Amino acid sequence: MQKLTIGIDIGGTNISYGVVTENGIVKLKESFPIKEFTDVNVFIDYLANRIQISLTGLGTEYELMGVGIGAPNGNYYNGTIEFAPNLPWKGVIPLAELLSNKINLPVKLTNDANAATMGEMIYGNAKDLKDFMMITLGTGLGSGFVANGKLILGHDGFAGELGHAIFDPNGRQCNCGRKGCLETYASASGIVRTVIELLNDTDEPSSLRNIPEKEINSELIYKASLERDEIALKAFDYTAYVLGVMLANAVTITSPEVIFLFGGLANAGDRLFKPVKKYFNDHLLEIYKNKIELKPSGLSENDAAILGAAALLK
Amino acid sequence: MQKLTIGIDIGGTNISYGVVTENGIVKLKESFPIKEFTDVNVFIDYLANRIQISLTGLGTEYELMGVGIGAPNGNYYNGTIEFAPNLPWKGVIPLAELLSNKINLPVKLTNDANAATMGEMIYGNAKDLKDFMMITLGTGLGSGFVANGKLILGHDGFAGELGHAIFDPNGRQCNCGRKGCLETYASASGIVRTVIELLNDTDEPSSLRNIPEKEINSELIYKASLERDEIALKAFDYTAYVLGVMLANAVTITSPEVIFLFGGLANAGDRLFKPVKKYFNDHLLEIYKNKIELKPSGLSENDAAILGAAALLK
Repeated sequence: MQKLTIGIDIGGTNISYGVVTENGIVKLKESFPIKEFTDVNVFIDYLANRIQISLTGLGTEYELMGVGIGAPNGNYYNGTIEFAPNLPWKGVIPLAELLSNKINLPVKLTNDANAATMGEMIYGNAKDLKDFMMITLGTGLGSGFVANGKLILGHDGFAGELGHAIFDPNGRQCNCGRKGCLETYASASGIVRTVIELLNDTDEPSSLRNIPEKEINSELIYKASLERDEIALKAFDYTAYVLGVMLANAVTITSPEVIFLFGGLANAGDRLFKPVKKYFNDHLLEIYKNKIELKPSGLSENDAAILGAAALLK
Repeated sequence: MQKLTIGIDIGGTNISYGVVTENGIVKLKESFPIKEFTDVNVFIDYLANRIQISLTGLGTEYELMGVGIGAPNGNYYNGTIEFAPNLPWKGVIPLAELLSNKINLPVKLTNDANAATMGEMIYGNAKDLKDFMMITLGTGLGSGFVANGKLILGHDGFAGELGHAIFDPNGRQCNCGRKGCLETYASASGIVRTVIELLNDTDEPSSLRNIPEKEINSELIYKASLERDEIALKAFDYTAYVLGVMLANAVTITSPEVIFLFGGLANAGDRLFKPVKKYFNDHLLEIYKNKIELKPSGLSENDAAILGAAALLK
């Protein structure tokens, strides 16, 4: 009889869930839009039903160990989603409890970056590491920190928000209301802001000038950089500089063995990794130099969120 | 029969050691200059002898549990002191092993700020805390981080160097060779640099103008601030601003319940705590606001280093 876990990834647009084996193989994956579920109880009923249908469809004997959920503003201690600006549910939602009551199984919940960190530790490239850092470079910048072999959750379950460490107190306006947060520079949206600043502040010729500002995105910037577009190259360099400095600062706290970079921007490979490594090492305190690796995540981007959520049951 | 531990504090000028009871009472304390001990083996012989004399002098029956050492650039994993610029011994010194071989007892060693952190956890105000941060404000700025109830040592034993997190990559020259490290602003030497900058860059009248630059120290600045000297008040405000921002950044990683401030500058009390609290809360991400206390350490300054070192045996 197979032991299975359900991993659920709650995002601003879609809910994805997958059936995960003990070895971290995603046997089956489903996805549906979140928009219509303004009532969380309707959502829970629908989700439980869908999961049941998926499991029956497997046609094998299994033992279901539990459900893990990764969600924005997810709190591991309470199993709640708290004031998530991009979800249809307002206030504090006890999602883990609601689902657990419905399906009579343990349900664990944490924020998406912490789930990805658990995924890296259980199924990815961090299996043998006791001290590492995970950086997810999506629209924003998420992070998770493992020290002494355990995920740092903090006293309130909200540890790991490096995207909101302040790089420049007088810098770019952040959605969080403050200024100069790391994610306003080092993220898919951050590099777009850098390109737009460079386009407006310089006369440098660039193929990106032919694209309306609102349509510029990180993939187009990456493509332009492959053609050695100067604005695109400068934008990658500046993004890497800010990220390099802030990672060097984070190292002074947890002194990790490896820093994993994951998600959209990290797919730019050497275009991002090479300058990040340079600026990171340039700004690293002497005692840490040449001891800390910067590596791509070992999780496939398609499965990472589901594997991470499932890993919460381990 | 009493169970006793020896706590040793190795500093650039003096070595202090104390005999510590199970309840964290320092029964006896001795101190001698380090300068003459250029040969570490001679030092070990002398130290072991002095400790033996002290213990005999107690005139009670006891069981000695072991020795803890706090030292600059101390590495917990190896029990070594590595490349400490202010000590007479160069390179990597296996101090814990040397002393343990001499006295046939367990010897643990870590850096001074981590020792103070252990002291706070075992004997101070952090007894019931699983997630806290300790900041020692001396000539430099030391730090220790506890998450999930354990001191974060990092993969190489050198975690907790927040004094060398970079506040401004183009800022003040630091002894470590880089620029803009937190401790060049927020420490006894940092506030002196701020005062000297303010004296040179402004025409503000100040009693501190009557003191030769080389003689200005943090106590004189504190005294001037009590007389509402504008330069001194501005210097405390700026020190608090930099510290507040950088503590808010550190919170994004470990999300502690309490941040303890300890040592020289922290003795300025409200003069420092009030503005630090203000700037800290101003720069804190919304989800952390009003959840994290800034408190003075529960360790007396005279005994903290010895208690911290002794706490390593717990």
